Amino acid sequence: MVSILQYNNGEIRRLTLKELSQCLSSPEGIFWVDLENPLEAEEETLLVSVFDFHPLAIEDTQRGADEEGHLPKVEDFGEYLFVIFNPVEVTAGNASSDRGGGFEIRTTQLSAFLSKRVLVTHHYSPLRSITNAQQLLSKNPKALARGPDFLFHIIIDELVDNYTPILDQLDALMDDMEREVFHEPTQETMIRILQMRRNITTLRRVAFYQREMLNRLSRGEFALITRDEMLYYRNVFDHLVRMTDLTDSYRETVGGLLDAYLSVTSNKLSQVMKVLTIISTIFLPLSVITGFFGMNFAHLPGLDSPMGVILTTLSMVLVAGGMLWVFRRNRWI
Amino acid sequence: MVSILQYNNGEIRRLTLKELSQCLSSPEGIFWVDLENPLEAEEETLLVSVFDFHPLAIEDTQRGADEEGHLPKVEDFGEYLFVIFNPVEVTAGNASSDRGGGFEIRTTQLSAFLSKRVLVTHHYSPLRSITNAQQLLSKNPKALARGPDFLFHIIIDELVDNYTPILDQLDALMDDMEREVFHEPTQETMIRILQMRRNITTLRRVAFYQREMLNRLSRGEFALITRDEMLYYRNVFDHLVRMTDLTDSYRETVGGLLDAYLSVTSNKLSQVMKVLTIISTIFLPLSVITGFFGMNFAHLPGLDSPMGVILTTLSMVLVAGGMLWVFRRNRWI
Amino acid sequence: MVSILQYNNGEIRRLTLKELSQCLSSPEGIFWVDLENPLEAEEETLLVSVFDFHPLAIEDTQRGADEEGHLPKVEDFGEYLFVIFNPVEVTAGNASSDRGGGFEIRTTQLSAFLSKRVLVTHHYSPLRSITNAQQLLSKNPKALARGPDFLFHIIIDELVDNYTPILDQLDALMDDMEREVFHEPTQETMIRILQMRRNITTLRRVAFYQREMLNRLSRGEFALITRDEMLYYRNVFDHLVRMTDLTDSYRETVGGLLDAYLSVTSNKLSQVMKVLTIISTIFLPLSVITGFFGMNFAHLPGLDSPMGVILTTLSMVLVAGGMLWVFRRNRWI
Amino acid sequence: MVSILQYNNGEIRRLTLKELSQCLSSPEGIFWVDLENPLEAEEETLLVSVFDFHPLAIEDTQRGADEEGHLPKVEDFGEYLFVIFNPVEVTAGNASSDRGGGFEIRTTQLSAFLSKRVLVTHHYSPLRSITNAQQLLSKNPKALARGPDFLFHIIIDELVDNYTPILDQLDALMDDMEREVFHEPTQETMIRILQMRRNITTLRRVAFYQREMLNRLSRGEFALITRDEMLYYRNVFDHLVRMTDLTDSYRETVGGLLDAYLSVTSNKLSQVMKVLTIISTIFLPLSVITGFFGMNFAHLPGLDSPMGVILTTLSMVLVAGGMLWVFRRNRWI
Amino acid sequence: MVSILQYNNGEIRRLTLKELSQCLSSPEGIFWVDLENPLEAEEETLLVSVFDFHPLAIEDTQRGADEEGHLPKVEDFGEYLFVIFNPVEVTAGNASSDRGGGFEIRTTQLSAFLSKRVLVTHHYSPLRSITNAQQLLSKNPKALARGPDFLFHIIIDELVDNYTPILDQLDALMDDMEREVFHEPTQETMIRILQMRRNITTLRRVAFYQREMLNRLSRGEFALITRDEMLYYRNVFDHLVRMTDLTDSYRETVGGLLDAYLSVTSNKLSQVMKVLTIISTIFLPLSVITGFFGMNFAHLPGLDSPMGVILTTLSMVLVAGGMLWVFRRNRWI
Repeated sequence: MVSILQYNNGEIRRLTLKELSQCLSSPEGIFWVDLENPLEAEEETLLVSVFDFHPLAIEDTQRGADEEGHLPKVEDFGEYLFVIFNPVEVTAGNASSDRGGGFEIRTTQLSAFLSKRVLVTHHYSPLRSITNAQQLLSKNPKALARGPDFLFHIIIDELVDNYTPILDQLDALMDDMEREVFHEPTQETMIRILQMRRNITTLRRVAFYQREMLNRLSRGEFALITRDEMLYYRNVFDHLVRMTDLTDSYRETVGGLLDAYLSVTSNKLSQVMKVLTIISTIFLPLSVITGFFGMNFAHLPGLDSPMGVILTTLSMVLVAGGMLWVFRRNRWI
Repeated sequence: MVSILQYNNGEIRRLTLKELSQCLSSPEGIFWVDLENPLEAEEETLLVSVFDFHPLAIEDTQRGADEEGHLPKVEDFGEYLFVIFNPVEVTAGNASSDRGGGFEIRTTQLSAFLSKRVLVTHHYSPLRSITNAQQLLSKNPKALARGPDFLFHIIIDELVDNYTPILDQLDALMDDMEREVFHEPTQETMIRILQMRRNITTLRRVAFYQREMLNRLSRGEFALITRDEMLYYRNVFDHLVRMTDLTDSYRETVGGLLDAYLSVTSNKLSQVMKVLTIISTIFLPLSVITGFFGMNFAHLPGLDSPMGVILTTLSMVLVAGGMLWVFRRNRWI
Repeated sequence: MVSILQYNNGEIRRLTLKELSQCLSSPEGIFWVDLENPLEAEEETLLVSVFDFHPLAIEDTQRGADEEGHLPKVEDFGEYLFVIFNPVEVTAGNASSDRGGGFEIRTTQLSAFLSKRVLVTHHYSPLRSITNAQQLLSKNPKALARGPDFLFHIIIDELVDNYTPILDQLDALMDDMEREVFHEPTQETMIRILQMRRNITTLRRVAFYQREMLNRLSRGEFALITRDEMLYYRNVFDHLVRMTDLTDSYRETVGGLLDAYLSVTSNKLSQVMKVLTIISTIFLPLSVITGFFGMNFAHLPGLDSPMGVILTTLSMVLVAGGMLWVFRRNRWI
Repeated sequence: MVSILQYNNGEIRRLTLKELSQCLSSPEGIFWVDLENPLEAEEETLLVSVFDFHPLAIEDTQRGADEEGHLPKVEDFGEYLFVIFNPVEVTAGNASSDRGGGFEIRTTQLSAFLSKRVLVTHHYSPLRSITNAQQLLSKNPKALARGPDFLFHIIIDELVDNYTPILDQLDALMDDMEREVFHEPTQETMIRILQMRRNITTLRRVAFYQREMLNRLSRGEFALITRDEMLYYRNVFDHLVRMTDLTDSYRETVGGLLDAYLSVTSNKLSQVMKVLTIISTIFLPLSVITGFFGMNFAHLPGLDSPMGVILTTLSMVLVAGGMLWVFRRNRWI
Repeated sequence: MVSILQYNNGEIRRLTLKELSQCLSSPEGIFWVDLENPLEAEEETLLVSVFDFHPLAIEDTQRGADEEGHLPKVEDFGEYLFVIFNPVEVTAGNASSDRGGGFEIRTTQLSAFLSKRVLVTHHYSPLRSITNAQQLLSKNPKALARGPDFLFHIIIDELVDNYTPILDQLDALMDDMEREVFHEPTQETMIRILQMRRNITTLRRVAFYQREMLNRLSRGEFALITRDEMLYYRNVFDHLVRMTDLTDSYRETVGGLLDAYLSVTSNKLSQVMKVLTIISTIFLPLSVITGFFGMNFAHLPGLDSPMGVILTTLSMVLVAGGMLWVFRRNRWI
């Protein structure tokens, strides 16, 4: 699906592919071409014929069809910047992924070509940040008047803002897990913790690479980002610094959860063993007492007296009670 | 709440919002505008209308309303510097946070705009460093004569000094915990250690980012900090180096506490198990002895002799005593 | 085995060693000389006599005969670049290496001399990337027209592409291992995990050194790589960044597997011990009951009544059942 | 206590405070002013009135009265360098610190002001390096002729040399501890290892900061250190590199000790448990045999034969012996 | 022992100390002075009187008499370079060091002064690399004609080559240890692993410092190393990069061995405990059965029937067999 927007004299017009070629030749107008899960023919026409982008960049763009996409990067081709971003997607919790606390984080790919008058965005799955930017333009067409670099900043700002609810979800999940670890840890808990750690690592990697990229975009390294817009890119950079920082502290929290899990489960089991062993330890002496009077000696004292049984039973109760008392005094129970 | 101070000819005067605009137009006077938990209208008037600060900076300022605020940073807008600091706050120990050793450390946000003649500070919760700076000015008005950069140095110096009692508290808490770990470790101890580690990580992060910031402020990167004041900023930088260093060593101590906790608890439990097992081990042979003479053989020796019982009992005492003696000689008990 | 290709006027011709010397003296033609497991005489003739390469470079080349070869590096000798690459080879799973999940990763060595008109490649074992490049040239001779630097880029691009199936295999293996860890962990599993970690470390090292090398090759440090080709080298660099990133995350996953293995096996064994101890704990009290009525007291109650046996047996069942009920309620079973 | 030395024409003279001011005004002479635990009045006179040092530097100087003093640093005030060093002090082993292997390492503070003709040193506790330098001057007054920077080098060289015996003590202690860990580990051992680790961390930190400082002093960054003396400072730098290196390797050794301690104690306890369990395991079957012949069946074989007892006893001995033999063959004992 | 070699007009002559002074004054000839464990008088004459080296360098040279020598470094004194190298020595396995897998790695010191015409080497223990270089010169005197820097390169190249057999030994030892860990781990194994780790750390440190040094020597930082020789130094640098890389991977392998050791020993012991507990668990129910028929009830069923004994014995066999079957089905045995 290809959507082409042209801004001219305060108005935004939707163009067809044919109109685009004509408009591009006139020196006026700013364009945004968005390819969402495009046909190969559309990619061929637009990226190759109309814009003549470098084959290596186009190849990288198409790697977005893979599962995880290309790592974030920015490349200066002189006439245009080629930028790859990694939006993250949360897979809704199905049977198997449910183990990971209800969701799994996966990265997708947003490729963008940014020239003086044109922004081309390319992605396979629909992206909320693109939709939001389109809605914003329909409300306020003049936002496009500030140039493709400003528009692109809006898209990646939205994209980074989308990380926030995911981080909040992770935070809530870790709270749940902490409760679970300290109250009813099972083997499932450990699987979840390890999966959580993987999710956080994914997020951290994405945030890290994009932070480095935004750092370059915001410090004037590329002529296509005007001085005025650099501040806005700096702003996105700040968000990503915060995010990297958060994921770092999440990592530490998850590490702590793992330590706690191992300690709690081992502790829990040991408590059970202790109680069981205490029971054994109390009954063994009793067993010896009964055995004593079960011996077939003719001269065993008290066998014939009615008090024998009573005293023996009493001594058994005393031995058991005494041991319990000692164990409790030593805080073993 | 907005408080506006003007220094002119050795005197400090408190201005209203209206007077401020007039005074700003005259080429004389140095101003300090403090916004503590301001109304949105006040922010609008001051930050936007009167001072015309950049919208992105104002947006960052308002993020201080969130729980944790924005990470420390400094940005040069030419006419003014925009600085964000993270004062830390100790939440008094209530029921739930009590687990973390009586307090939890949380960061808040202090934003400041520093220009040649004006210092604007903005924060949501009341800050001791601001109050202290105000008291100092009322005693010694000439401190403002050295310019907003000197005044700002006083505020952040106070702010960093406020970390010291928190670090002392942490130190004392860790001493308590060490005693607890080695004398009566419970699962609560582990929760406390993990929470302590989080607190220390928070402090360390805050100290780290602010140290980097102070480093930039103190090495002449920004024209708005005069050469004479740089030394004072260097002084604050030194405090933060010390603080990062301390939090690093605290981190290591907490790590050691965790190791110790795991070792001590596992050791403690094993000691209990050992004693219990020793008891079992002593009574089992006795049980076999009594069983032996409980067998119904007609020709079991000594059944009819009165010495039988005595000798058997004696042998049981000897076996038990002998085992205890062997165990003790091997230092098992 | 030496294979010499000459490109001239759109055609590729296979030369003998003698023809090479003649053709090199004419100012036309681009050459690719490939030495696969060459005789020492061939090395002597080509590397020393014909091309007069530096003895240190030749020495490094011959170190490829060792097991692991030389680490990747690039050296500028002015007239030519000397480059060492480390292709990786998967040893098919035999009896002993089978333990490592069916394969072991080993590095070999590809040495290359790159001058304006000549590319000399040297390797001991046959390499798929060389074969692929040769096939490509036979289909499209003009690829050589772009110079030896373009041809060399094709070879290393193929070489890096060969890592992908290995990474995929590793990924699949780790999935298998995760299942094994959580379902039937044995000591073999641990040996496999440790071996897997070594494999990943090998890959990571190779990727890391080659990434650094490609970084230098792609940023214009060497005059022999023309500006136009730098982009293609950048492309290979990107692949290696991705690969380093993947191996890093694999490393973390393997670390998690080890943690999981240790926790799962210890847990599994403890569960067995718990059940066994529970059985003991249930039978010991029963033993005391039977012992009680085995005592030889004359006045033991109920010995003569037929209900005695029944009540005693009932009480034994009740005691055993009661304990089981308590254990289950406490979730010990 | 203030001691003032003046060098003039090959002679060293001890001055009073009053003479100092007069001599300073003449263009000749080199001075060393040492303040050991000075009165506040002395500090006021010397640091403020006579030398007019920067208030921030004086403030830092006085922080040496605190427990740990200021971190090492060097600051260039143009006319003079302000340097802080951290000598280390070993607290002799008393009851409580005895746990840490007989001593605890604590840092103190030596502040120094170094100008063209004057060296001012300031410290609270007496320092051996200062005393040694004074003795050296009394033997060889011309050492002062080379300027305050040479004298200062002597002091810090002595100071760093004082670390060596401490490192040797640590080394010896770790050897003791290793023996203790492998032969009679107690909980005290762990406390000692953790304390040792803290001591080493303290030393490492001190060495690290001072190394960085010496690096700056020795590479010509400061005009007040003449080219000729730089080599001597480089020499001190080398000592500190060695020291950081040693503390790093000590750190690793201590980490290994902790691992060993945990493994050895857990192993030791498990051995005890194993032996105890083996005893139980041997007596339980015997118990069943005796129980068998204690059953009240009329037709139990052998009850009436005199051989019955003998054979039963023999079978019990055989069972016990057989189990022991199996256990030993499997290397369980 | 002092050995002095002079190269002049294609010939190498052995000089006495007196001849040296005369020859040095003539503008011709290249010299190599080697001091092996020299008398103090020899050091005085040569280093101080003849060559007038800097006292700090001489002091560093003499520190080689200590156990571990000085860390590697290179210092430019203008007229000459002062270089310290750390050859490693393997102590043959005696009683106490035998624990570390048959050998312990110790560093010694080789100091060298390198000027335009003279190379002075100084060491306390005899070094194979020196002897080899001397033999090489006697065969090929012209090697010295290329200058002291080329000769020095030969010495350090030999020295670094001597690391290779040590690394191979370590590799073989680790293979042995791995077998030991997985087949018969004892406490000695752990001591050996820890000692191995220390050996590897020593090697790694030596390699690291020397790599950094060679990096400086090979990139043209020092005028005394001519451009032509730099390549040869680069070659030694490459060897050291490989060596650091190998020691890094050895470190990881040793870390894995430690993990494996801890897991295997704990596993092994737990297996023993499990078998023992299974034996107990099987005999306890049997004990209850015999106890049941040992009760003195008059109406116990089957006491008088000859089938009683047989059925009871059968039931005991069935219970024991049944439990074994269940345990085996659950893979507990």
